[in-house]
Amino acid sequence: MKLVRHGAPGAESAGIVDAHGTVRDVSMLVPDIGPAQLGARTLAALAAIDATRLPAVPPGTRLGCPVGGVGKIVCVGLNYADHARETGLAPPPEPVLFMKATSSLCGPHDAVRIPPSADKVDWEVELGLVIGTRMQGVSEGDALGHLAGYVLANDVSERAWQMERGGQWDKGKSADTFAPVGPWLVTADEIADPHAIDLWLQVNGQRMQSGSTRDFLFGVPAVLAYISRFMTLEPGDLVLTGTPAGVGLGQKPQPRFLRVGDEMRLGASGLGEQRLVCVAG
Amino acid sequence: MKLVRHGAPGAESAGIVDAHGTVRDVSMLVPDIGPAQLGARTLAALAAIDATRLPAVPPGTRLGCPVGGVGKIVCVGLNYADHARETGLAPPPEPVLFMKATSSLCGPHDAVRIPPSADKVDWEVELGLVIGTRMQGVSEGDALGHLAGYVLANDVSERAWQMERGGQWDKGKSADTFAPVGPWLVTADEIADPHAIDLWLQVNGQRMQSGSTRDFLFGVPAVLAYISRFMTLEPGDLVLTGTPAGVGLGQKPQPRFLRVGDEMRLGASGLGEQRLVCVAG
Repeated sequence: MKLVRHGAPGAESAGIVDAHGTVRDVSMLVPDIGPAQLGARTLAALAAIDATRLPAVPPGTRLGCPVGGVGKIVCVGLNYADHARETGLAPPPEPVLFMKATSSLCGPHDAVRIPPSADKVDWEVELGLVIGTRMQGVSEGDALGHLAGYVLANDVSERAWQMERGGQWDKGKSADTFAPVGPWLVTADEIADPHAIDLWLQVNGQRMQSGSTRDFLFGVPAVLAYISRFMTLEPGDLVLTGTPAGVGLGQKPQPRFLRVGDEMRLGASGLGEQRLVCVAG
Repeated sequence: MKLVRHGAPGAESAGIVDAHGTVRDVSMLVPDIGPAQLGARTLAALAAIDATRLPAVPPGTRLGCPVGGVGKIVCVGLNYADHARETGLAPPPEPVLFMKATSSLCGPHDAVRIPPSADKVDWEVELGLVIGTRMQGVSEGDALGHLAGYVLANDVSERAWQMERGGQWDKGKSADTFAPVGPWLVTADEIADPHAIDLWLQVNGQRMQSGSTRDFLFGVPAVLAYISRFMTLEPGDLVLTGTPAGVGLGQKPQPRFLRVGDEMRLGASGLGEQRLVCVAG
């Protein structure tokens, strides 16, 4: 099942994508796709609906982040060896964790705003995990059972703010629109193997990133079990699992950063695509 | 005005502390003390209530974090020269920012849970700021006008997780109960000068921290203006402004960390006190 949130920013409603790809409104049954809807019982009830019998959402309706009420965004840094290499950092012996502000979330086709004083804004296509049930000290064997599903995410980053302004990365990860998520929350039953997802990203039509979650340093169960030892993951929390090589910072002979007018297109197998135009923030 | 949230964890109700120090229930007028109540109009209406005419909350009722619906917790690192010195780090040329997970929030007298694999859990008494209205790229001159008020906070930290496990601090800042906040949200009108607040913390009756916000490297307007250039601060967000010297990590001849059974007491002038007993997590 593919769930969406449709409507204006801050006023999104719940939706389901039917078998033909049409977005259908389900807001008469659930107030949102958020923490209260991500448990197995509600997801199973939504899956029991013949979505083609729900009202279609008008074509062109904006999609928001497919998860509402996100409590935190926990991110794994340097989770692909090729990306660690391009940043000049050693592959970490255990996951590096940082956070993005929830105020950075936006929809999959929203404008990405380049802040006035930013000049090293970069892209990162990622597999995102949506927590369905509370996880604290969970084993790797139990971890996948706590997932509601998967999302495509773009961990937009300002590299100078991230790395040259005090050393803690969150500062460069948290501007408004720096976390485009979606288009869909794809429920876990639709993803046979989260370690066989191809990821790609292009800027102005030029392919910059081509990766696969096969190349994770730390796989999905390991990442979830690891995080849950340090903090509790709650329904609606997002985990971003890191990006493969090909970010702007790693371009040769010199880095390539995003400018106003640039267009990012990115996708992940089974998780849909994003199209994001950069505007002055 | 002093606002509180009283009741069981996750089911707190809004309250007001009357002139005699009695907690009064105001949940029949407002559903919570959270983002929707922190603007000037609602705070002014709450201040117009003769709280002594509201029902008293039974003595001994638990207090929660006095702000509900917290969207993010942004923290300033090393904001006192004496604390920077004891950690062995140079005073930063600009604020160091990191985040705590909102799932780490708890009440001012709750048990602090020491996670099973943690053995360097430390204390940090801090002045906390509660955002009342949205702040993006705000000037220092305008910054204080966006505050709803102030809170006492304890930035509980696991030093090994913070500094020896990949370099990004959030991992050591975000366990459940690592952010005791309160007892009260003290509205901004009651704090004549946020740079004249004495802070103290003792462990098992021994004074460990004695500081004053006079010694901030970056004052409240500077911190707020700075953060709002990198991310948007929203109503209900918390900003923790850093801790003075005297943390466990800085003790001589050797560090002193929290053990099960230890009791922290801490306070800040005008902002009340916390009493926190450490238990096995």
